Amino acid sequence: MSIHIVLVHPEIPHNTGAIGRTCVALGYDLALIRPIRFALDDAHIRRCGLDYWPYLKLSVHENWEAFLADAKPERLFFLSTKGSKSLYETSFRDGDTLVFGCESRGLPPELYERYSNDLFRIPMPGEHSRSLNLSNAVAIAAYEAYRQLNPVSPEQP
Amino acid sequence: MSIHIVLVHPEIPHNTGAIGRTCVALGYDLALIRPIRFALDDAHIRRCGLDYWPYLKLSVHENWEAFLADAKPERLFFLSTKGSKSLYETSFRDGDTLVFGCESRGLPPELYERYSNDLFRIPMPGEHSRSLNLSNAVAIAAYEAYRQLNPVSPEQP
Repeated sequence: MSIHIVLVHPEIPHNTGAIGRTCVALGYDLALIRPIRFALDDAHIRRCGLDYWPYLKLSVHENWEAFLADAKPERLFFLSTKGSKSLYETSFRDGDTLVFGCESRGLPPELYERYSNDLFRIPMPGEHSRSLNLSNAVAIAAYEAYRQLNPVSPEQP
Repeated sequence: MSIHIVLVHPEIPHNTGAIGRTCVALGYDLALIRPIRFALDDAHIRRCGLDYWPYLKLSVHENWEAFLADAKPERLFFLSTKGSKSLYETSFRDGDTLVFGCESRGLPPELYERYSNDLFRIPMPGEHSRSLNLSNAVAIAAYEAYRQLNPVSPEQP
């Protein structure tokens, strides 16, 4: 059982680092779409103390089309504040792919257009809410998919 | 409807910043228990670009006993890798309080002992998993509580 996580043009290395850690925790793989604004070389990863990084199932793709050709995703879910449907209205299946845009601008405009029926938002009911940290958004959606695919009974009081 | 988030001795300012952002998104309040290893003054917060911070319902407490006396929490849930019960076996209620330890050492030993029946873990089924970034752990648990208290029907395929 696995879900695939995709980051399109990530900008902030410690967010990608935290997302990699979540993927290792869940046994999910992580795909990064170039351009990426930071180095992915061993020295940099080591300097960031990302000691779980060697266990991450990571792939890096030159662009969105290359990702589609390589990964051949079956079902794509784009997480976005522009989504009209809630994450909690989805029904995830094994093999689903969750896609996230970059920290400053979200997804590229062409993906918003092309996948306008596949945008999902994480609810933010707070009065002054605007957005979430990217690594937190990934964690919330990745674990919601995990929860749906691994149902447990609530504890009896 | 609200849930309360508590961080005991947080160490890394950008984690507390991201957690504050999640709390604003959900309309939850955030309590910090001293000692805290970073400054909470306006200049530092501004420098970190935490523009939502003024909207955060924040309280700071000298120690755990002072927090209990001030906040009078009804039901406490301690999130910990040492928990034997899963987050997803809980049934949250309005007003519940979720407590998280610090990045390097988790909860203080005396809280593990005193609240040994109230420890919950976030499942980490990955083969090489060890722990999650603190702000991600808070986001996962805070949104699971939100999901339980705001049920929606899954989308029909």
